[in-house]
Amino acid sequence: MARAEETSDQLCAAYPVRGGDGPSSYAVNSVYQRGAVAAAKEFISKAIEEKLDTEILLSSKTFRIADLGCAVGPNSFFSAENIIEAVQLKYKSQGLNSQTLEFQVFFNDITANDFNKLFRSLPSNRQYYAAGVPGSFYGRLFPNASINLFHSAFAIPWMSQVPKTVMDRNGPAWNKGRIFYSDASDEVVSAYEAQNAEDMERFLHARAQEIVSGGLMVFFIPGRPDGTPHSHTLPNLIYQILGSCLMDLARKGVVDEEKVNSFNIPNYLMSSKELENAVEQNGCFSIERRENLDHFFAHDTVYKSPQLLASQIRASLEGLFKQQFGDEILDELFELYGKKLEEQQSMVESGKAVVFLLVLRRLAN
Amino acid sequence: MARAEETSDQLCAAYPVRGGDGPSSYAVNSVYQRGAVAAAKEFISKAIEEKLDTEILLSSKTFRIADLGCAVGPNSFFSAENIIEAVQLKYKSQGLNSQTLEFQVFFNDITANDFNKLFRSLPSNRQYYAAGVPGSFYGRLFPNASINLFHSAFAIPWMSQVPKTVMDRNGPAWNKGRIFYSDASDEVVSAYEAQNAEDMERFLHARAQEIVSGGLMVFFIPGRPDGTPHSHTLPNLIYQILGSCLMDLARKGVVDEEKVNSFNIPNYLMSSKELENAVEQNGCFSIERRENLDHFFAHDTVYKSPQLLASQIRASLEGLFKQQFGDEILDELFELYGKKLEEQQSMVESGKAVVFLLVLRRLAN
Repeated sequence: MARAEETSDQLCAAYPVRGGDGPSSYAVNSVYQRGAVAAAKEFISKAIEEKLDTEILLSSKTFRIADLGCAVGPNSFFSAENIIEAVQLKYKSQGLNSQTLEFQVFFNDITANDFNKLFRSLPSNRQYYAAGVPGSFYGRLFPNASINLFHSAFAIPWMSQVPKTVMDRNGPAWNKGRIFYSDASDEVVSAYEAQNAEDMERFLHARAQEIVSGGLMVFFIPGRPDGTPHSHTLPNLIYQILGSCLMDLARKGVVDEEKVNSFNIPNYLMSSKELENAVEQNGCFSIERRENLDHFFAHDTVYKSPQLLASQIRASLEGLFKQQFGDEILDELFELYGKKLEEQQSMVESGKAVVFLLVLRRLAN
Repeated sequence: MARAEETSDQLCAAYPVRGGDGPSSYAVNSVYQRGAVAAAKEFISKAIEEKLDTEILLSSKTFRIADLGCAVGPNSFFSAENIIEAVQLKYKSQGLNSQTLEFQVFFNDITANDFNKLFRSLPSNRQYYAAGVPGSFYGRLFPNASINLFHSAFAIPWMSQVPKTVMDRNGPAWNKGRIFYSDASDEVVSAYEAQNAEDMERFLHARAQEIVSGGLMVFFIPGRPDGTPHSHTLPNLIYQILGSCLMDLARKGVVDEEKVNSFNIPNYLMSSKELENAVEQNGCFSIERRENLDHFFAHDTVYKSPQLLASQIRASLEGLFKQQFGDEILDELFELYGKKLEEQQSMVESGKAVVFLLVLRRLAN
């Protein structure tokens, strides 16, 4: 067999954004996920009702679900419950006795995730056997053909790493004065695009081996609306403004500019075309359904409250920023950030956003 | 399906002994486990070579192992590697291509265990897919017939809870002036015996459902040598002396005596007869092999060094003691403990001990 997760440790080092022990460290995701989970419950139910093969239900007494990028719950628990409810309904609708069907749910996130917190908050009345699986989803996590349904909400934009060329101080993609790709040079954008393409290839390749033939993958992926430039996409705007705050602090001598130059957030929002290309390139999955949740972010109250947004972005990225810039600048940085978000609120609100709701099915080998 | 682990939360509250975040909190187990793992590697290999059904190897491309009471590694990792090596050898010896066989290892411990530490120390070159499973092994942890081989080293003596009758201040088994059963009244001993019998019934009942037909369970269980009274069994002596230190402090007014009265360590060492009875009573497993490692504890250098022993017992039980007695007495308690262990070293060394090495096989339904 291949060595399991042979590359995950190196990936994890580059990918600690969503980890952390604090109760609020996944707050941003959590806030926008909760809305999406609610909005998308019906999407999950319909996908399973209409797309799940009966053969899969009959092939085993255990239905195995994996949630990729689970953070510390609770959204992951809600998703698991929605999926299980839908599978049970489907099972019953086929005239089968759903009492004999058992569920096992694997909660995956990077090794730096706080699995202790996740485990301690598992619902006590859950209808499934729970397991935690540490490691990057850009590598293998599960045995061959062992998962019936993959789910991932809001995690896929987190890349395996910052593109190497962006970290090359002497190369053309050196991202001087910025911390993100969307407002950067074409070289930086290209490097992020290429890293995303490589990541998606690895992601889909791993899942194609791990999922049963005919198995479904249900993904919620924040993306870039067609025709919208990277720099006008809402979540990107948020990071751009944070980058400009860091540069303000560098100019004031509070932050070492070199540390800004060598710091980049490993997050990339795909267009629908990039997403489709990735699936096509991989060749193991059919796109069974794709919906765009267009106005999702714009409706989220967090984007209308600069202070709340600043504190939530802080909670989400604090670990990463602490590592690079140290504890002591954080208060000043995020105070400034709150102010800037307020000043630029109309620009933030003009940002375009989309969440791709996607159902893929594993084609027969 | 049954609600998974419906009772585990209440069990966990009573069973936090082996948890904890500190690097040394499992030190005692670790020290005596390491020796046992080494001594028992051959036992595992032989058990698998001679007792593992070839049908099990052929029935699935994934061989699933669960280690019950894994703590935070690393002994659990060594055991997993030993098992996998032995299964691969067996597979090859049958003329099968072991490259096609994949392994998934489930690391189980109570929810309070530090899974973050466990996950971060997983060997990077491991030949298996790893998952963590939180919950008491006295309840269900896995789907029906989903595990090929169970392993547990040194965890089974930890009971699901202190027997309820021992906690009843007005009952005959109220354990006044003591923290353990082995030097207590007959009523207390009976209550521990009964709790152990009930725990073993639940333990074997759960495993019988979770393991595949013909699957093996390899257990290392510290026990009580036949003919040795509870109070002369080595690990018990260690706890008795600790209890007497607490009473000394109570007499000095440092510790509230009522807190000693209501505190008990949920650990019980079975005789070979009790172990056999439990297996027989359950009726789902055959005893394929049982060896006694007689002189194991006596040879362990930790028992020859009172100071080392005191500090290791402290590391092991600190969490539990802190909860009951508060932080502030610990230094004084364990200083006294070191002295008492030294004074009573010849008695400690006269203690008898045994580790049962056990191979059970799941009978066909």
